[in-house]
Amino acid sequence: MVRVAVIGVGCSRFGVRSDVTVQELAFEAVKEAFNDCSITQEDVELSVIGSVATRLYELYPAVPVNEYVGLDGKGPLRVEAACASGSAALYTAYASIACGQVDTAIVIGVEKMNEVDTVTSLAVGGRGGNYLWEFHLFGTTFPAYYALYAARHMWRYGTTEEQLAMVAVKAHKYGSMNPKAHFQKRITLDEALRSRVVAWPLKLYDCCPMSDGSAAVILASEAKVKELRVDTPIWIEAMGYSSDTANLVRREDYLGLMATVKAAQMAYRKARVTPSEVDVAAVHDCFTIAEIMAYEDLGFCPKGQGGRMIEEGQTEIGGRIPVNLDGGLKAKGHPLGATGVSMVYELTKQLREEAGGRQAPIKRGVALAHNVGGTGHYCWVTVLKR
Amino acid sequence: MVRVAVIGVGCSRFGVRSDVTVQELAFEAVKEAFNDCSITQEDVELSVIGSVATRLYELYPAVPVNEYVGLDGKGPLRVEAACASGSAALYTAYASIACGQVDTAIVIGVEKMNEVDTVTSLAVGGRGGNYLWEFHLFGTTFPAYYALYAARHMWRYGTTEEQLAMVAVKAHKYGSMNPKAHFQKRITLDEALRSRVVAWPLKLYDCCPMSDGSAAVILASEAKVKELRVDTPIWIEAMGYSSDTANLVRREDYLGLMATVKAAQMAYRKARVTPSEVDVAAVHDCFTIAEIMAYEDLGFCPKGQGGRMIEEGQTEIGGRIPVNLDGGLKAKGHPLGATGVSMVYELTKQLREEAGGRQAPIKRGVALAHNVGGTGHYCWVTVLKR
Repeated sequence: MVRVAVIGVGCSRFGVRSDVTVQELAFEAVKEAFNDCSITQEDVELSVIGSVATRLYELYPAVPVNEYVGLDGKGPLRVEAACASGSAALYTAYASIACGQVDTAIVIGVEKMNEVDTVTSLAVGGRGGNYLWEFHLFGTTFPAYYALYAARHMWRYGTTEEQLAMVAVKAHKYGSMNPKAHFQKRITLDEALRSRVVAWPLKLYDCCPMSDGSAAVILASEAKVKELRVDTPIWIEAMGYSSDTANLVRREDYLGLMATVKAAQMAYRKARVTPSEVDVAAVHDCFTIAEIMAYEDLGFCPKGQGGRMIEEGQTEIGGRIPVNLDGGLKAKGHPLGATGVSMVYELTKQLREEAGGRQAPIKRGVALAHNVGGTGHYCWVTVLKR
Repeated sequence: MVRVAVIGVGCSRFGVRSDVTVQELAFEAVKEAFNDCSITQEDVELSVIGSVATRLYELYPAVPVNEYVGLDGKGPLRVEAACASGSAALYTAYASIACGQVDTAIVIGVEKMNEVDTVTSLAVGGRGGNYLWEFHLFGTTFPAYYALYAARHMWRYGTTEEQLAMVAVKAHKYGSMNPKAHFQKRITLDEALRSRVVAWPLKLYDCCPMSDGSAAVILASEAKVKELRVDTPIWIEAMGYSSDTANLVRREDYLGLMATVKAAQMAYRKARVTPSEVDVAAVHDCFTIAEIMAYEDLGFCPKGQGGRMIEEGQTEIGGRIPVNLDGGLKAKGHPLGATGVSMVYELTKQLREEAGGRQAPIKRGVALAHNVGGTGHYCWVTVLKR
């Protein structure tokens, strides 16, 4: 297996981006990524687009995006795995270099969520998964699904609404320090707790926003890294994946995501690292309960202790494993296809120690990205190493 | 690079399949593929779905399809490259084995086209590509795009309407011998020539139908092939790809598809074979002109001689390179995501010499699949070897 490194990263500002088309949005990240390394569009051998493409007239987003960003001829596919589309696209490019098909590749994650109307967004959220039974009969959309998990987690482990709210407070704190975040404003615990209920126990501040955004990552083989004399290559040590049943009624319990557990096991095994070696992580906090379950499912703490972990500040800078120092999905935003790619953007900056005021201490040089699609329907875990 | 082989193949009946859901349709192919080899769903490490998923409630087809066919946990992504989605999915699974991530994988291509209404299908055809300029201003949908190529090819090389019609006659001849084909009825040259004009010079019989269908291919690493003692592994010698501009106005000429030329060059180079070594091929004949251009762009004949090639019967059994012996997109049908996978199904049967009455003579044991997305917007070329 050829070793694969991240050699350039870019990310657009996340938020309501009605000022740009999908192509222009992608270009913001692509431009920054090429400025971040010494190769050009000409040198790239493969472009992989990660996008759900929620709008019908973007049914085939790869070609128009590649045409606009100067990658004609390089982009033969688009990859989709719901909210984990960015990581799935990263995987495809990673495997292409790892197997020796190409020496360089770019991954572009892009999504515009804010032009989707409410009916469509409902369809995107639940009906889009063709989980017809649960969706049609019970109207379970994403907040409702995660609320089931939250309620069960509270019942079983004594996790509190305050602990959920603390995840949001942390996200907004770091988001306020990230000029690319959708929300750059701190919130108080009280504000989070008093926000309106969306699906109990989840309130408005427990939910990530609908964001537009893009991110891009340029990858190279070990030989290419040497040829280019890259200063700080960030190696993809391993990627793990899993997926789970469509209908939640077929799941064993509602205390964690089996897809995360399995994807993490695969990633740790292939990378030969343990959770305790991770310096900094980006986890999929589409809802606050998702971050707490991720701590547990990724092995950052024993099952049931996720609430305590946020309460003790273990996932802030200074704590045991700082998590989501870019604001996470909750404050940085969640433009489906861009999310997973933007995690690698952030962790690359962290491992290079270029994250400024929100830099985590880097000891072992290991970072972990955790990207979930749906309610644990898909999961990708990526281990990065300096 | 780990060698990768096809060890099991399956294909549903193509056609109007309102008798089944997408999941049930996929299962028909998956079941046949598992019956065709000695492994089970349990043994598969990765499932890749190739699908355009033209209907909004199939926005995320991977999870419901995998759940239904017994591949929970194995299917972390869906791949899309318009009409080449099946090949792009094959590539992702191939690269996953070639790089050593997994030893076994399944590729499932599935599409239901017949429940898409006409407005949506127009959007799927042109607007879905976000080629806004040409689509909105000129209303150029797929038949119109390919008609431009056909008219130009006729003008430049003297290709005739009769030669185009001969491609359709050949497709229907072999389709009539394929119990899985959408159309299993021969047509005469006269019927083809007198069918109504869709976009001159293309008539009804120059266009492939809207089909539902599925196909599945099970892949294994060389080590696994030995472990399982597979009788007739069909090796994926190489895959080549390319893509092209969204708007056709940016293309150099309208005489062939640059994406095919580049994808074929990559595939031949990596597989170390020449076009003259190919025993049998499946090419992307979404319109009859597309098959004639494919002969030329794939190097089966010099540029401009494609018309003569069909006229001389060079691409029938007994000719130099038999092409589309399953009926092709034109008669077997074209369920977008399933098409590329079904080409590998057919060529595997051919290389194993299991194709019965429509068996090509196998001399060197080399077959080629050519799968185009859009009007040469994407292209994948796969070289298979016995």
